[in-house]
Amino acid sequence: MTELTIALDAMGGDQGPDIVVTALARALSSFPRVHFILVGDEAKLNTLLQQHPQIQKSARVSLQKSTQVVAMTDKPSAVVRAKPDSSMRVALDLVHNGSAQACVSAGNTGALMAMAYLTLKTLPGVMRPALVASLPQQNGSQGLLLDLGANPSCDAETLCQFGIMGSVMAQHINAVKKPRVALLNMGTEEMKGNDIVRHAALLLKASPHVEYIGFVEGSDLFSGKADVIVCDGFTGNIALKSCEGLAELLYANLKQSFSGHTMSKWLVKLLFKRYRKSWDWLNPDQYNGASLLGLRGVVMKSHGNASANAYFSAIQHAIREAEVSLPEQIHDRIEAALLELR
Amino acid sequence: MTELTIALDAMGGDQGPDIVVTALARALSSFPRVHFILVGDEAKLNTLLQQHPQIQKSARVSLQKSTQVVAMTDKPSAVVRAKPDSSMRVALDLVHNGSAQACVSAGNTGALMAMAYLTLKTLPGVMRPALVASLPQQNGSQGLLLDLGANPSCDAETLCQFGIMGSVMAQHINAVKKPRVALLNMGTEEMKGNDIVRHAALLLKASPHVEYIGFVEGSDLFSGKADVIVCDGFTGNIALKSCEGLAELLYANLKQSFSGHTMSKWLVKLLFKRYRKSWDWLNPDQYNGASLLGLRGVVMKSHGNASANAYFSAIQHAIREAEVSLPEQIHDRIEAALLELR
Repeated sequence: MTELTIALDAMGGDQGPDIVVTALARALSSFPRVHFILVGDEAKLNTLLQQHPQIQKSARVSLQKSTQVVAMTDKPSAVVRAKPDSSMRVALDLVHNGSAQACVSAGNTGALMAMAYLTLKTLPGVMRPALVASLPQQNGSQGLLLDLGANPSCDAETLCQFGIMGSVMAQHINAVKKPRVALLNMGTEEMKGNDIVRHAALLLKASPHVEYIGFVEGSDLFSGKADVIVCDGFTGNIALKSCEGLAELLYANLKQSFSGHTMSKWLVKLLFKRYRKSWDWLNPDQYNGASLLGLRGVVMKSHGNASANAYFSAIQHAIREAEVSLPEQIHDRIEAALLELR
Repeated sequence: MTELTIALDAMGGDQGPDIVVTALARALSSFPRVHFILVGDEAKLNTLLQQHPQIQKSARVSLQKSTQVVAMTDKPSAVVRAKPDSSMRVALDLVHNGSAQACVSAGNTGALMAMAYLTLKTLPGVMRPALVASLPQQNGSQGLLLDLGANPSCDAETLCQFGIMGSVMAQHINAVKKPRVALLNMGTEEMKGNDIVRHAALLLKASPHVEYIGFVEGSDLFSGKADVIVCDGFTGNIALKSCEGLAELLYANLKQSFSGHTMSKWLVKLLFKRYRKSWDWLNPDQYNGASLLGLRGVVMKSHGNASANAYFSAIQHAIREAEVSLPEQIHDRIEAALLELR
């Protein structure tokens, strides 16, 4: 395996560069052959690094200065032009020019999607990039859901490509031999839904590049029925955010329901702690290790208000995708699918 | 107030006519001025009624025989032609010919939507009927979400009408003076989402017939931010079913998380009981008192596997909608909105 380099946007995210540097310290020892480029405000980073001599001394870390920062409140469309020297953009440029194989950012999701698309471009034949995240399944496995908001509307061909890209990711990242790919719909019968989803079903059914299993409903997002669930970004975003809303409601209800109980307070407390923990991952601004599929390079989104642990986990995901050359794997499969159509 | 008559489809639902008759017994004493028509298999109903002398003796109950039953597995499109003498269809016909002001069914939702649309037709000016349900809000109030699946795709004008219809319902049923109407979208900024939802936003903003407050996200379905949330049936169905899926996952996780605890088993048990109860209403086949808005008559859907209590609750909802003449109220508002456009 050739040595990998990962670019880290140190300035994105609500927590600033502190957690990025802490995560980097951990990644340095966990991945002894991986190189890192820390992108951000030079003065701030140098000050921070004084507390991390192992990073300062490491030959596997270099600093790349940038003078601008993308704020969480910045409009994606504006950022693309207005912040060409932002840490996010510079980190993406490092992937674009081959200095790094992947980049990790905890910054503004919309800005990251827009900038990554502009900087890296899609792989040949890929119509649109998709934001994908892993969802825990009832059987303990991981399912992939895409798109989560990169594309408000999708045509059938795009949805079909998402199925192919998701299938490649499930194979190489989640180690599923024959990933079961499904389309999210309002019912499982063939005539259900709208024209686009029905047309996408025909395309996926006809494709030898995916194991298409049919429509699944929202109730199957976590049921383990499919390894990859495909929808447009509008639907994916609303599905997951609705879950977030429900989790908040159930939490509030349960809390109220137990407010009168004086006994076993420790148990109730424990319960709430575990309960909160069980849906923390639901906040779409906080998907840990949501990636943009279909681009010429690996782009990993970490929590906006990620802890160092969460950012470290995003680095792990990015390394994994770079190690298996996920963009190249996707490229090969998409190319094969396109050749078939000729 | 003139006296009301409610038609009850006694055969729909997984539980058969037993629970319908039990619910009717309760409704008879709770609503001393309301008349009921029980529709279904004559022999079966007569046998059942022997256990309910108060129903047999009542001058406010009549029987209407029907020879067919819509099964939960029947295809809606097929049922419309194949089962003209089903209890569901006969109950709807009673509303259509003015013998009843409302009908309640626990049968196949898709079949009920199709048959109701065909039998009752939409109110003048109403483009499409919408399935609407109440969602509990964190502040204890009720919010309305529509459409839940009657219309997989909607244009902007239809979404705008749903906003108007929902607003009328929130006023007359949930007693909200100035219902805040919102559109479900993948973000709250004006440029978010697809063309249809952005166009619908312009129409709702311009309408003097609704208090439009802008876009809300999935995370606001239960937050109390809006009194009426509008989306197409595809989105509404997937949003709610995703919540159902999450509730199942959290339940399984929590159960596993506490499986090692030997102490306070009673508390854990109580917890799970309350927890399950807190999201039982989420199953879209089980919305209790989901109604079809925009038709020339009140049509109320009860749980498919409803208890007698749940069916009674659907009867209550139907009576309430008939009492306030909800279809007429909707008609007036839609007519006013249409006149404005001329």
